[in-house]
Amino acid sequence: MTSRIAILGASGYTGAELVRLIATHGRMEIAALTADRKAGSPMAEVYPHLRHLDLPHLQRIEEVDFSGIDMVFCALPHATSQAVIADLPRDLKIVDLSADFRLRDPADYERWYGKPHAAPELQKEAVYGLTEFYRDEIRGARLVAGTGCNAATGQYALRPLIAAEAIDLDDIVLDLKCAVSGAGRSLRENLLHAELSEGYHPYAAGGTHRHLGEFDQEFSALAGRPVRVQFTPHLMPANRGILASAYVTGDARVVHDTLSQAYADEPFLQVLPFGELPSTRHVRGSNLCHIGVSGDRLPGRAMVVAALDNLTKGSSGQALQNANLMLDIPEHTGLMLAPCFP
Amino acid sequence: MTSRIAILGASGYTGAELVRLIATHGRMEIAALTADRKAGSPMAEVYPHLRHLDLPHLQRIEEVDFSGIDMVFCALPHATSQAVIADLPRDLKIVDLSADFRLRDPADYERWYGKPHAAPELQKEAVYGLTEFYRDEIRGARLVAGTGCNAATGQYALRPLIAAEAIDLDDIVLDLKCAVSGAGRSLRENLLHAELSEGYHPYAAGGTHRHLGEFDQEFSALAGRPVRVQFTPHLMPANRGILASAYVTGDARVVHDTLSQAYADEPFLQVLPFGELPSTRHVRGSNLCHIGVSGDRLPGRAMVVAALDNLTKGSSGQALQNANLMLDIPEHTGLMLAPCFP
Amino acid sequence: MTSRIAILGASGYTGAELVRLIATHGRMEIAALTADRKAGSPMAEVYPHLRHLDLPHLQRIEEVDFSGIDMVFCALPHATSQAVIADLPRDLKIVDLSADFRLRDPADYERWYGKPHAAPELQKEAVYGLTEFYRDEIRGARLVAGTGCNAATGQYALRPLIAAEAIDLDDIVLDLKCAVSGAGRSLRENLLHAELSEGYHPYAAGGTHRHLGEFDQEFSALAGRPVRVQFTPHLMPANRGILASAYVTGDARVVHDTLSQAYADEPFLQVLPFGELPSTRHVRGSNLCHIGVSGDRLPGRAMVVAALDNLTKGSSGQALQNANLMLDIPEHTGLMLAPCFP
Amino acid sequence: MTSRIAILGASGYTGAELVRLIATHGRMEIAALTADRKAGSPMAEVYPHLRHLDLPHLQRIEEVDFSGIDMVFCALPHATSQAVIADLPRDLKIVDLSADFRLRDPADYERWYGKPHAAPELQKEAVYGLTEFYRDEIRGARLVAGTGCNAATGQYALRPLIAAEAIDLDDIVLDLKCAVSGAGRSLRENLLHAELSEGYHPYAAGGTHRHLGEFDQEFSALAGRPVRVQFTPHLMPANRGILASAYVTGDARVVHDTLSQAYADEPFLQVLPFGELPSTRHVRGSNLCHIGVSGDRLPGRAMVVAALDNLTKGSSGQALQNANLMLDIPEHTGLMLAPCFP
Repeated sequence: MTSRIAILGASGYTGAELVRLIATHGRMEIAALTADRKAGSPMAEVYPHLRHLDLPHLQRIEEVDFSGIDMVFCALPHATSQAVIADLPRDLKIVDLSADFRLRDPADYERWYGKPHAAPELQKEAVYGLTEFYRDEIRGARLVAGTGCNAATGQYALRPLIAAEAIDLDDIVLDLKCAVSGAGRSLRENLLHAELSEGYHPYAAGGTHRHLGEFDQEFSALAGRPVRVQFTPHLMPANRGILASAYVTGDARVVHDTLSQAYADEPFLQVLPFGELPSTRHVRGSNLCHIGVSGDRLPGRAMVVAALDNLTKGSSGQALQNANLMLDIPEHTGLMLAPCFP
Repeated sequence: MTSRIAILGASGYTGAELVRLIATHGRMEIAALTADRKAGSPMAEVYPHLRHLDLPHLQRIEEVDFSGIDMVFCALPHATSQAVIADLPRDLKIVDLSADFRLRDPADYERWYGKPHAAPELQKEAVYGLTEFYRDEIRGARLVAGTGCNAATGQYALRPLIAAEAIDLDDIVLDLKCAVSGAGRSLRENLLHAELSEGYHPYAAGGTHRHLGEFDQEFSALAGRPVRVQFTPHLMPANRGILASAYVTGDARVVHDTLSQAYADEPFLQVLPFGELPSTRHVRGSNLCHIGVSGDRLPGRAMVVAALDNLTKGSSGQALQNANLMLDIPEHTGLMLAPCFP
Repeated sequence: MTSRIAILGASGYTGAELVRLIATHGRMEIAALTADRKAGSPMAEVYPHLRHLDLPHLQRIEEVDFSGIDMVFCALPHATSQAVIADLPRDLKIVDLSADFRLRDPADYERWYGKPHAAPELQKEAVYGLTEFYRDEIRGARLVAGTGCNAATGQYALRPLIAAEAIDLDDIVLDLKCAVSGAGRSLRENLLHAELSEGYHPYAAGGTHRHLGEFDQEFSALAGRPVRVQFTPHLMPANRGILASAYVTGDARVVHDTLSQAYADEPFLQVLPFGELPSTRHVRGSNLCHIGVSGDRLPGRAMVVAALDNLTKGSSGQALQNANLMLDIPEHTGLMLAPCFP
Repeated sequence: MTSRIAILGASGYTGAELVRLIATHGRMEIAALTADRKAGSPMAEVYPHLRHLDLPHLQRIEEVDFSGIDMVFCALPHATSQAVIADLPRDLKIVDLSADFRLRDPADYERWYGKPHAAPELQKEAVYGLTEFYRDEIRGARLVAGTGCNAATGQYALRPLIAAEAIDLDDIVLDLKCAVSGAGRSLRENLLHAELSEGYHPYAAGGTHRHLGEFDQEFSALAGRPVRVQFTPHLMPANRGILASAYVTGDARVVHDTLSQAYADEPFLQVLPFGELPSTRHVRGSNLCHIGVSGDRLPGRAMVVAALDNLTKGSSGQALQNANLMLDIPEHTGLMLAPCFP
């Protein structure tokens, strides 16, 4: 049986990535694609790499007939997402890729996103979409909130360690290296090729990046007490990939064992042999996350490094994995593409 | 039914690309992988991006038990390929990705490759592997010779035009822009990141590139008389992609019509609307070839541009497409991956 | 003696490149920098790489006191440039980097730029700024029109050959590979890193690129009859560099000799040994142009390849070279920086 | 007066960078260039970007007449350097760019480099070449040991803080992002464009990078007691640049003040306004180091980020700066090139 899919906000990179993944999924059919400013255009005009696919033209959301739709992927900007989802038919299953439903406490949302949440009642039913840790809730959910891509990477590196108290919870430094597609298809000077290529720099320093809201929420819930990491992302001259380098206090072997056991049955989370560290190039275009652990010459210090593709495992692949669960399709369907290297 | 596959020379980029494609093929099982110098290593060590796959360890060719194998992909260097294939069981189906069996006339081989052909009798049964033009022969073949990646790109741009005499056969300039993976995983100074990135240059100028042997053979056969193009490749700071810019004398509309009609039923060959020209980034990681035609302010001059991924449609994707035909599997199986953009 | 300089439009890449070059010039002092939208900002905010220099803040053009200024570099967009220059004091020496004064015939300007020329009387006194070919006129000029960066590259490859009729004037194909900084610091989707990197494509195909106006004007003047080249630029995933591949009919040795003799005394124009072809990476950041010639297996066919840095020799370096002449400063002053490789 | 210079090991990137810088120095003349395997070749063959310079051919070291030489830059691999320098005339001034004379204690050398030091007596007279901190000693030195490029970057970020005890000495995490030219012009698979571009990964993890020897030596000397940082470098898909992200415990304002005061008179060390962080792209090709400080939402935590060009300020620029001091030439001579951006 084929599920009928709508993608709202299909002109952004996560929207296009969803189409790429669904193209070989086999049990989903794309019934509607929306993009306000590009409404009326064929998708091939907006994304020529999808030219070979038989896709509906882009529409305005108002034009979509949701009656035959089984699942909506909402790839709209935050704040917009809230408003749109609040207006959708109540029985639609939804995976939201924006930041709008990630933070359980509306006060947290307001603090990190600078404005009050407009749909707090929907927030109550939203399930946090980090698949491997919320699988059961996701399976039964109507509305799933896709995680931040940085937030996902850091959590894959650290959740089992925090849950097991395998590391000092008050001494976690998280240095992220993020590719540029995470910033979306936005016309900003610092995203130009001439500006970005050949260099790298930190951004959102000082503990100001919004994904900290997710780290705080999730890590504190796991620990049963407040956990606050020091987190700074760096923008890389590359299109896809997040590398999270976590510097922690703990026994490196215990750290490795804890992660290995936690992820032993997870097809997408690959823990490397002790001492081997991952590279973003080896997960590119795939739904995989590679995780490595190294000790240090300093006794009691360790390093955990996680690498994933921000557009796939960090957003659209995760969204599809969650949708599979919600639609009772085998979880890995459409997600077994091997990384595209070199 | 699943076909059992051996890949000889699996430590090179085309070998790894075959594994990537077969990973989601569904009707092939990789039974053997060889690599002389890396024999004994797990594939994950040589190509960490394939770590999640359950693959046999690398072996020496001599160690392979070919008795249960249905199809061999031979991704060895030219010259080596001849010798190895000559020693394989006579009933094995083989797709050779090297240059060894592309040129029908052994004298041509000697001229372009600088040494006599060592297996001229095998050459006789080899079918030239440009799938869309040799489909019937490939279906019945035992040994198929994969084409050069530059040769494939130029032929997709020009074959129908030469066959139809839609252009002046004595005035064809072919300027190619080629990504670096076409040079393989070889330790050469000019392939280093520090040397290659941020710049571009012509190479093999003067009509010395070996793929000219294929152009001469194929274009002359089509025309029924000698056709000689002026062809210069340029090395690009990118990993995947060939862009062939062909400058021709002919009516641009007729050129476009000729290509559109020739490729109307070809799922992988996409002719763009008149006046639109392709980009390598929009075929990256896929088996697609995008082809565009533009006129010029100079009456009677036209430009044909073809773009494909050298590792996929230019070599390993083509090889798999041919293998599908030879094994009576639907031709597009495992090859419908959408391009990976951005 | 130090000349006082104003740069109008200093927030663009050519403006910043002028500042970079003048920083070690020794005989110029930057007295004013303008940028309308950024007026009031320190240059370090707009271009942090110039932070260590003691520079005036950005101003609006109206705020500049031109009384003590010896030379104005006008790095404004075309059309704007005309209007601004028409209002400047009549005794100021000016090098204009825009397209506004390149085409001698105002009708040509209107044809290529889509609107009538607004200052045709200024056009009359403008000298075309291809230094090596207009040195004497530039020395005595008040207003010099910087050439297009593609136009400069193509002319360095071809002018001596056309002047000497060393090649067939009716059969010239010019395939250019251009880095992205030539498009300026403009917020356009196709200039984003995520869109541009890892791929390449032709643009302005069909003989529509505006620099053709310059080729037509200059080549026809040299030949004493109309010369029309087929010219298509391609956008490269790199920041600096233009590579012009010219396919011509002529004797390759004669072509090489003609270029070698023409440029024998030119310090910035380096003709490589016969058969060697240049790379953009080897002129990066410098005022050099490397030129190579190759024959072809096709008798009577040759290839000329020229490489330069579009921001330096292609625009701001050229502008400074011309300004040196106009100010009676040794021509190479401030321009002997070696290329920055790797 | 012009000093006569010899560069030993001129076929590597630091050798070529020295030539680039000396090209516009004005008070140095390159009298000899050596490269064993390329002896006899013109430099233009090995580095075409230096083609326009009038340089001596490459020689073997044995062939150099050192009698008229004032200064030797030794850009040879470590271990080789010791042997070569031990054989040079005793009165030659030498700047060594290798690791051979950086560590004062021969036991440290043996520990980090895996073999006994072969010239411990020379080690005694060697001065550590971090110019801004050893200026007086360098001025009078015969032999100066250029620092590691990573070691220089980390020290610029941290030395004044450690000397002033402005941060907790037992809690320093140093996450470095390093461009590929730091690995030299070496034929290693992981340095190929196809392997490196589009991804990033940590290397030499676990506290194993040799530059830790310099950090230990210098930081401990400053503090008067052992200081051990946790340091992991990451390899970036870029050619030039090191970004050091230091995570420290201390008051961010005090940290910023301490650095600002320490570097107030240093022309090459630019401390950015509080809260602004640097980018490698803005120091590219220059001898500048940009340093920024940010606080964090976590009270008492701060971040110091330093950016420099590994080939310039990190090695060859530093070497030239030291040579200027040793030759009584103004320190900044030949080093005021503005960064090459974009």
